Amino acid sequence: MVTFTRERSEGGVTERLFDLTVAGERVPAVIWAPEGARGQRPLILMGHGGSQHKKIGTLAARARQYAKRLGYATLAIDAPGHGDRISREQAEQLSREVGARVRGQGNSGFTPEMAKAMAERTRRAVPEWKAALDATLAFDFVAHTTQIGYWGVSMGTAIGVPFVAEEPRIKCAVFGLAGLRPGQTAFEEAAKAIHIPVEFVFQWEDAVAPRENGIALFDAFGSKEKTMHINPGEHVAIPNFEGASWERFYSRHLGKAEAMARAFE
Amino acid sequence: MVTFTRERSEGGVTERLFDLTVAGERVPAVIWAPEGARGQRPLILMGHGGSQHKKIGTLAARARQYAKRLGYATLAIDAPGHGDRISREQAEQLSREVGARVRGQGNSGFTPEMAKAMAERTRRAVPEWKAALDATLAFDFVAHTTQIGYWGVSMGTAIGVPFVAEEPRIKCAVFGLAGLRPGQTAFEEAAKAIHIPVEFVFQWEDAVAPRENGIALFDAFGSKEKTMHINPGEHVAIPNFEGASWERFYSRHLGKAEAMARAFE
Repeated sequence: MVTFTRERSEGGVTERLFDLTVAGERVPAVIWAPEGARGQRPLILMGHGGSQHKKIGTLAARARQYAKRLGYATLAIDAPGHGDRISREQAEQLSREVGARVRGQGNSGFTPEMAKAMAERTRRAVPEWKAALDATLAFDFVAHTTQIGYWGVSMGTAIGVPFVAEEPRIKCAVFGLAGLRPGQTAFEEAAKAIHIPVEFVFQWEDAVAPRENGIALFDAFGSKEKTMHINPGEHVAIPNFEGASWERFYSRHLGKAEAMARAFE
Repeated sequence: MVTFTRERSEGGVTERLFDLTVAGERVPAVIWAPEGARGQRPLILMGHGGSQHKKIGTLAARARQYAKRLGYATLAIDAPGHGDRISREQAEQLSREVGARVRGQGNSGFTPEMAKAMAERTRRAVPEWKAALDATLAFDFVAHTTQIGYWGVSMGTAIGVPFVAEEPRIKCAVFGLAGLRPGQTAFEEAAKAIHIPVEFVFQWEDAVAPRENGIALFDAFGSKEKTMHINPGEHVAIPNFEGASWERFYSRHLGKAEAMARAFE
């Protein structure tokens, strides 16, 4: 049974922190839900980007919005080597490195070392996500919901595609800011194994993910319903209206908490 | 002053037919608006596809929805060689020809004759759209609104891009199901001259518009805000959720009639 290490309500939304132990390592997690919520509601798993952490501003803002507008719960965990799993100095160093990459400074190519580090991070992250989902489903304000979505762009897609590919409980997913490079066989196989609805957001001048790689990843998804949204601009410049589109994507596939509550009364 | 040849209300929406005379030719037009509407409201101009007509089911359904949900007026006209401008027999023949093309049957390539016919149709259609807009702005339930959007895919884009490029009153546009072929210099220049927000919907297995041409047209738009939505499937298979996306696109850029009414009170 999970114990919340901190619980704080603000503006009608309760944020709870908890820790998991997976393969001997502490995995810090956070879950947002409407204040006073009890019973079943849709759940979104949000995977943060490289150098970010589980409570990064944009992610937390969306989680609060989903709680208030849709009655959802939203779960986030620190990826391996990120957030509370590293020191502040390490986080600052990581932020500088990733920042330079997305701005197209220095070597924007994907080196074999980077590919290896990402593969290793994903190998650890997938069971962590599964453990976090297992724990979360038992919370009384989630109550073993079957309406579960995933959101993750950039590193959240690098980790999310293999995770979602082998997690049948996920019903729909938002991916983006990532591509399929030639020779990424395992990643391609994972994308092909995904058959749930996918919304794939892509920046047309992304220094990290070239256009042809983005289109290759979109093409690889096995889903019958998949949409690619292309916008001009660099990696970190996703327009605000895409955020509104994600909210509608989840509403369409997972419903709203209120509607479900009525359906189960 | 325009005289309505027929006026019919159903489900809270009034549909009015009227005729314009442009360059000596009759141009049949239709406008939908909320029943009993008076005063300024956003206006959408909808250009139908090849072989279709101004009151084609999907277009009319959207117009009624916009009237009911957003308080909008929606204008449509029969394109040259379409709708009430040709005989029923000609319309059926046209429908068979275009149907075969979008299903990828026969010669799906764009012949010089087809290019010439489309250029001639566009040359006539652009002043017809301008005349229809002029007439419509004077209606008391449109009342010289400045909140004007364009919608048109396939032939509605072939005609719409040159029209919108030289019509400063249009504030945002939905285009799609079309591409920029090598050598289409005038069409490319028109796309480059467009700087308003554009939502561009594209089918990934479109027998009429190859992928690379679709991307070339998206790239050509001069707009800072432009989004390309790619979905799997053939020409006529745009998913329903794109219709919901267009509605939000117009709401975002043109507002709702109610909000405007309040602002002008």
